[in-house]
Amino acid sequence: MKPRIAIDAMGGDEGVRVMLGGAAEARHRHERFTFLLVGDEKQIKQGLDNHPNLRAASEILHTEEVVKGEDKPSQALRKSKNSSMGLAIQAVKSGDCSAAVSAGNTGALMAMAKLALRTMPGIDRPALAALLPTLEETDMVMLDLGANTECDARNLVQFAIMGAVYSQIIFGFEKPRTGLLNIGTEESKGTEAIRDAAAALRAATHLPMQFKGFIEADKISRGDVDVVVTDGFSGNIALKALEGTARFVTDLLKRSFQSSLRSKIGFLISRPATELLKHHLDPNNHNGAVFLGLNGVVVKSHGSASIKGVANAVEVAARLVEDNITQRIGDVLKDFDTSAIASNGVASNGSGEFPK
Amino acid sequence: MKPRIAIDAMGGDEGVRVMLGGAAEARHRHERFTFLLVGDEKQIKQGLDNHPNLRAASEILHTEEVVKGEDKPSQALRKSKNSSMGLAIQAVKSGDCSAAVSAGNTGALMAMAKLALRTMPGIDRPALAALLPTLEETDMVMLDLGANTECDARNLVQFAIMGAVYSQIIFGFEKPRTGLLNIGTEESKGTEAIRDAAAALRAATHLPMQFKGFIEADKISRGDVDVVVTDGFSGNIALKALEGTARFVTDLLKRSFQSSLRSKIGFLISRPATELLKHHLDPNNHNGAVFLGLNGVVVKSHGSASIKGVANAVEVAARLVEDNITQRIGDVLKDFDTSAIASNGVASNGSGEFPK
Repeated sequence: MKPRIAIDAMGGDEGVRVMLGGAAEARHRHERFTFLLVGDEKQIKQGLDNHPNLRAASEILHTEEVVKGEDKPSQALRKSKNSSMGLAIQAVKSGDCSAAVSAGNTGALMAMAKLALRTMPGIDRPALAALLPTLEETDMVMLDLGANTECDARNLVQFAIMGAVYSQIIFGFEKPRTGLLNIGTEESKGTEAIRDAAAALRAATHLPMQFKGFIEADKISRGDVDVVVTDGFSGNIALKALEGTARFVTDLLKRSFQSSLRSKIGFLISRPATELLKHHLDPNNHNGAVFLGLNGVVVKSHGSASIKGVANAVEVAARLVEDNITQRIGDVLKDFDTSAIASNGVASNGSGEFPK
Repeated sequence: MKPRIAIDAMGGDEGVRVMLGGAAEARHRHERFTFLLVGDEKQIKQGLDNHPNLRAASEILHTEEVVKGEDKPSQALRKSKNSSMGLAIQAVKSGDCSAAVSAGNTGALMAMAKLALRTMPGIDRPALAALLPTLEETDMVMLDLGANTECDARNLVQFAIMGAVYSQIIFGFEKPRTGLLNIGTEESKGTEAIRDAAAALRAATHLPMQFKGFIEADKISRGDVDVVVTDGFSGNIALKALEGTARFVTDLLKRSFQSSLRSKIGFLISRPATELLKHHLDPNNHNGAVFLGLNGVVVKSHGSASIKGVANAVEVAARLVEDNITQRIGDVLKDFDTSAIASNGVASNGSGEFPK
């Protein structure tokens, strides 16, 4: 199945320029990719003038309606049929495209994708999964990052399965090391939902993961596990704390380097080192948050992603399509019935805001 | 009231040497402090040989029993009467001392302190509050950091009041800017408990704080607010994510500086800059997590704190005693009855592990 990717050309801080640039770079890396570019035809055509290679592999679907950054999910849902974001998702639903990529409003994208594509069989709730840098060579997967404010044990077990299959596909691990985010490592720690989820994962023997028990938030970046599973509230808190602190420390470092002439000179000399750091932390190298658990692949690119970042998000989308993530998650669930796991019926209280 | 501080001389990674060193440094800074040093008399006497100034201001309370790092709170409680930690807390209970400082097992300290000192009138649950570095001059206060896994709206409002009074005392702000940790800033975000707490704080007009609504985890280190309020689960996740990421980024930086001869030279030259960064992030400059809401002052020093770190924890304890924190919190609660605020009766599921 050759990936044909629907691109919401209007989403993100810079819209057409970056989205088309990213698609063109992905196409440059993978000749077999084709695209449906959704948005303002005039702007897209202009943009394609710089990318003949992409033009040759793309169709344009014109629309003038755009989901705004400040639109609430309920407002955005009214734009399901006509906005660039909505039409990109509809193209996945109809089977015209195999995946959609958008850098637009996350809450809106989640709501639209869930409504149009529906949750896949065996999964109660979709989750938002992202890749994060670690001290090791490969990134780790963390989910949920804000799709579900409150989760029961069954949700967490399903997230663990989806995250493990995602990690298998993206990094090729046979049995990704998987941990549940908690405030301590002993069995007695945390909420009932987390403890019940841990008990179920510990008891399961043929899941595609090594279950490593609980992991604390200070260990996330160390690369001790490949998948960190959590509810959307804690996941969003952890993710934003990670991002905020990385920025905080680099800001402090910058300020320190400017504190004296000697430090400024040292900075210039050690530039390769700080560039290496910058490269490692650059979100564009880890771009593409995925909605797992839907009947279709939808990838959220960071709102401020660069062309390279968008290209990476497109690659992630294509990879998930080519490796049949939905079917592979379904296959695991065939052998492992999660419906017996405690569900305490907590309600979702709206979705978190994924960092742009 | 001259602060007389009970020191658990046996707690922490290095025990007597660091605890006595820290007390001696605090005494050196403040001649009026006196101490009750609790632990093995022989070791303490030996240690005091290096600190004649501290010896002149101290009594020794001998005991051989020690709470271990791996003791569970339930095991530790059996040591309430005879361990160095337990006796330090008992000295506060009896009125012999005005505060206790320990660098031992946090869960044990919390359990013992709660049992011996009891929660103060008007407060349903005590909370663990710590100081964290920001981009600004002053630190910020975050609570709860693990004393209560699940919290209702009333708990959160009480934490906000305690955190604000703590910030007033330590930093002298008249109305500390106070925010509730959440996954977005809109009123609709987060759990019911958080939204109800926000509504109650927004409606209250004469609390000793400026209520700033919701704050996201990536803003914690920016210094936009003076107090961040959260349940113990999210607070523990956020705190550990902050600490872990700060370490992660500095580890990456170290590695980058070692990546080439040029970078190594740059590092040597820019050393003052990296030392400045190290100083700013050094937990010893922000040492002393406080249990707020008890009938008495109990301060937890980091297990790996240096002499300076312990001295800072002792200073925090003395400051809270001299400024009558318990009474000041009580005064606020006299004018603001929190018993009307929604309490959905969630149960505490044991305490989180505060990072050593």
